[in-house]
Amino acid sequence: MGKSRLEAFSDGVIAIIITIMVLELKAPKEADLNALSALLPAFLSYLLSFVYLGIYWNNHHHMLHSVQHVGGGILWANLHLLFWLSLVPFVTAWMGENHFAAAPTAVYGLVMLLAAIAYLILQRAIIARQGRDSLLAEAVGRDFKGKLSPALYIIAIATTTITPRIAWVIYVAVALIWLIPDRRIERTLAVRTERAE
Amino acid sequence: MGKSRLEAFSDGVIAIIITIMVLELKAPKEADLNALSALLPAFLSYLLSFVYLGIYWNNHHHMLHSVQHVGGGILWANLHLLFWLSLVPFVTAWMGENHFAAAPTAVYGLVMLLAAIAYLILQRAIIARQGRDSLLAEAVGRDFKGKLSPALYIIAIATTTITPRIAWVIYVAVALIWLIPDRRIERTLAVRTERAE
Amino acid sequence: MGKSRLEAFSDGVIAIIITIMVLELKAPKEADLNALSALLPAFLSYLLSFVYLGIYWNNHHHMLHSVQHVGGGILWANLHLLFWLSLVPFVTAWMGENHFAAAPTAVYGLVMLLAAIAYLILQRAIIARQGRDSLLAEAVGRDFKGKLSPALYIIAIATTTITPRIAWVIYVAVALIWLIPDRRIERTLAVRTERAE
Amino acid sequence: MGKSRLEAFSDGVIAIIITIMVLELKAPKEADLNALSALLPAFLSYLLSFVYLGIYWNNHHHMLHSVQHVGGGILWANLHLLFWLSLVPFVTAWMGENHFAAAPTAVYGLVMLLAAIAYLILQRAIIARQGRDSLLAEAVGRDFKGKLSPALYIIAIATTTITPRIAWVIYVAVALIWLIPDRRIERTLAVRTERAE
Repeated sequence: MGKSRLEAFSDGVIAIIITIMVLELKAPKEADLNALSALLPAFLSYLLSFVYLGIYWNNHHHMLHSVQHVGGGILWANLHLLFWLSLVPFVTAWMGENHFAAAPTAVYGLVMLLAAIAYLILQRAIIARQGRDSLLAEAVGRDFKGKLSPALYIIAIATTTITPRIAWVIYVAVALIWLIPDRRIERTLAVRTERAE
Repeated sequence: MGKSRLEAFSDGVIAIIITIMVLELKAPKEADLNALSALLPAFLSYLLSFVYLGIYWNNHHHMLHSVQHVGGGILWANLHLLFWLSLVPFVTAWMGENHFAAAPTAVYGLVMLLAAIAYLILQRAIIARQGRDSLLAEAVGRDFKGKLSPALYIIAIATTTITPRIAWVIYVAVALIWLIPDRRIERTLAVRTERAE
Repeated sequence: MGKSRLEAFSDGVIAIIITIMVLELKAPKEADLNALSALLPAFLSYLLSFVYLGIYWNNHHHMLHSVQHVGGGILWANLHLLFWLSLVPFVTAWMGENHFAAAPTAVYGLVMLLAAIAYLILQRAIIARQGRDSLLAEAVGRDFKGKLSPALYIIAIATTTITPRIAWVIYVAVALIWLIPDRRIERTLAVRTERAE
Repeated sequence: MGKSRLEAFSDGVIAIIITIMVLELKAPKEADLNALSALLPAFLSYLLSFVYLGIYWNNHHHMLHSVQHVGGGILWANLHLLFWLSLVPFVTAWMGENHFAAAPTAVYGLVMLLAAIAYLILQRAIIARQGRDSLLAEAVGRDFKGKLSPALYIIAIATTTITPRIAWVIYVAVALIWLIPDRRIERTLAVRTERAE
């Protein structure tokens, strides 16, 4: 299977996930601003998930950029990632509607943790096919962010038994860490080009 | 009509089906884990259908790979398949919300049976256009899985009059059978290449 | 703007319309087949609209095939068509849930009539740009089906004041008329090729 | 990242937004035309937003046409625009269901204002990458409409404290201003071609 169809399908699914999430923001019956301000937690929850999905879309891109051919392993690793991402609208709505209570906040982190692990598995599947010397293998060699995020999610989930507040801070922090674009692949590419000259 | 537009449309429809299914997973009003565990049947139903649709997307690909030109017959055979697949979110929700009761489990199998038959019709339509000597014709010649699945669905549906449990096992089994990637076309292609040498 | 992006956008919108319609088929609370048979009118309404949208997707294709460049006129004529098609899920649900009562049946026909007119306007916009001697102009010269459909919709709407039954027959008949693939453009193309030889 | 994937993703998101909006038009329980006429405000709200999103899709196109390469800045500026556009179905439903009351009308304008600002930021990000001498920079040099729209939205929002009526007129007026296709880029291109000769 060509890479382009895998990219197109993944883009389609992420585009739909990011957009149908807004359907969970139900228009209030009342026409005053108080009714709207009651939706603030749901809105913040939506904003957080929108940023996360934007990051996944962006990084998914960078990662697939170095792929040439797609086999069954990569295909199913990719569907596995999309499965966890498809649950984002559900946990976003549950967390938002319950004003970031402990249990929904923990489950939000769990889905994010499973998506992050699925992302790492996909990365491994691509490297396994391309070989340890590949561009991607070198680029993710010291993938600090990729390993830090799951650890942070685990801390976030654990601390919700005391208070959900720490988890809120962690989720925002992880989003900010990733918002800085992932230039590792470009950098490695640049280094290689220099060496070649 | 070009093949690429048929592929893009099919991919789009499958991507939307796979994603809107999650809208049937309604976020519970309560913020505790008990409320979430009540959703477990709906979640399992969603997981099963996600895997089925992933399999259809994957196999649809392999099948269309050998197609060069798309006529009215193939186009409508394809829309016929998409019609039954579009009913998957409905039967998934009905089966999940009713905790895999007998009637929804039977209807789930019926929609899967009709989708499987629609898939076989599409296969025939492609072979009819390409000729009996075509790559696809040879590859599906002993299409064991393609013929086994409808038979298994019929058994599943029939047994729901006694208990839905056998059907559950069959649905999971069919999914597992298909998860093994369909290498028939590639294999035939490999054999042909060898012969040609 | 390139034709391919207009096609991709139109395909996307039609794929979404055809798929979200199924969200109007609400899974019943009860787990028995009686509950399902109560949904039969909604299902038939869905089936009819699925076929109509499949026909629009198919014909939209054939029509755009002869287009080379897309200007503002064609772009907005196309959005105008998509606007009426986007109302199909609404009228489908209203007609289905009310068991094909007179008023919803009439409004269903009205939306179909407006979509058919929008299709004719788009056809004119394309011919206006390509010139009267173009392939499309010649092909639609005696566009019998394109002119018959609006007339049939008007009759259907008018007769709902007496009974909705005639409209039901007409809607099915129009769908069947169009299911026969539109080979006019191909035929004209074939004739031209012969003449050129 | 290639421009085509950014375009495809944006097109996908806009196609989904424009289509799921119709899900807010709930089919009435009653089967008479009175029930339908009660939906007139929701329909008008939908129509207005459909036109706005059509305009954004069209202009987004023209703007990206002059882009060659997409960096992180442009990517996130684009996601920022899509974020505000994704809220359009929410404000459309809220305004429509409350019959264009003052508060929803103001919030509708606010989302439109923030989308318009996001559009200007995206324009800046593209020009910043391409240089002040670029085709786009020249074309938007005297971007009258781009600067007028936010000013009009601010006036609309402010006047809703007295009456929502002025805002309604402004929203329709802004849509009409933009419906006239944006030929600035083409014109500049034409002028440049002349100069070069």
